[in-house]
Amino acid sequence: MPDFAEPLARLIAEFKHLPGIGQKSAQRLAFHVLRASRESAQLLAQAVLDVKDKLTLCEACNNISDAELCQFCRDPNRDRKVVCVVEEPHNIVAIETTRQFQGLYHVLHGALSPLRGIGPEQLRIRNLVDRIGAGGVEEIIVATNPTAEGEATAVYLSKLLKPLGLKVTRIGMGVPVGSDIEFADEVTIWKAMEGRRER
Amino acid sequence: MPDFAEPLARLIAEFKHLPGIGQKSAQRLAFHVLRASRESAQLLAQAVLDVKDKLTLCEACNNISDAELCQFCRDPNRDRKVVCVVEEPHNIVAIETTRQFQGLYHVLHGALSPLRGIGPEQLRIRNLVDRIGAGGVEEIIVATNPTAEGEATAVYLSKLLKPLGLKVTRIGMGVPVGSDIEFADEVTIWKAMEGRRER
Repeated sequence: MPDFAEPLARLIAEFKHLPGIGQKSAQRLAFHVLRASRESAQLLAQAVLDVKDKLTLCEACNNISDAELCQFCRDPNRDRKVVCVVEEPHNIVAIETTRQFQGLYHVLHGALSPLRGIGPEQLRIRNLVDRIGAGGVEEIIVATNPTAEGEATAVYLSKLLKPLGLKVTRIGMGVPVGSDIEFADEVTIWKAMEGRRER
Repeated sequence: MPDFAEPLARLIAEFKHLPGIGQKSAQRLAFHVLRASRESAQLLAQAVLDVKDKLTLCEACNNISDAELCQFCRDPNRDRKVVCVVEEPHNIVAIETTRQFQGLYHVLHGALSPLRGIGPEQLRIRNLVDRIGAGGVEEIIVATNPTAEGEATAVYLSKLLKPLGLKVTRIGMGVPVGSDIEFADEVTIWKAMEGRRER
């Protein structure tokens, strides 16, 4: 015998498809929706649909956007000379929280991974080259993840873009601020040694 | 400057209204919906609405139901002589996981709490008395929570129902199975001592 009435069981199943949501969490969320007003359920349902229907990719940088250009590309106050390349749109959020970077972004939507069949043509690199060709870009900061795939992508981009006559940099790797060296793995410590600076 | 395009920011805000979902989880869920197919977003949105539109309370026991009677009340194989009284519909799920209880349920939708202005008339007690009046019920198991409110409700129900000539029992309280007595609080240990059995 099912423990829940059909619509409730179906909502629990739908919530379980979301990442990090197990049976218990899904039940708690479903009961919350059940207790909430019809209006707030409507707002949630509409927001879910709007994300699929009203969002597109920015023509310039491939970030998620509700217009032809995303909020960064259309902002006249951002520095168009520096472009930070990231793997995924949510990486932009992490960089924006620093409130230090004033340049633009470019989203690859992935990283090179020969094992998973992801080559340069699967990534959104072409319009990056177009942007550089249009002029005005002086530095590309490669902020792909510090993983094998992210590193391979960084090396590829560096080889591809340097001949175009601009500065290509890679974000620094090392021990995280506030952590203890004792807990860092050997590759991280080696990267930190390599990336040492005089002061 | 907002970090997200409007529809994405709105979905993140909606997910944050759900219990146990903070900013980071809400972002992860929203990006998941964004990457998922239009069809699965549609299924999620529809499930959210259906829970509000297609569910009602069982006329007999106040459980959440998609019909006049819930799946327990309309099941001819359940034992109608025993009724287990719980505070909330999700408490039924916990009891059903044991697969031991074969009786019916009655959901109060709350517990007595004078401090929060919840008296007997705010709870769904009237149709419990009606059920008992209709005959056939021999035992009421009070499975309200082992809290001050749940206990007060249990005492109230016992006083109300015993004069109707049926057995009113309270679920056992004590140290949880598989735990260590050392970690039980003094009230639980005292309840365990009180509830001791000869063997």
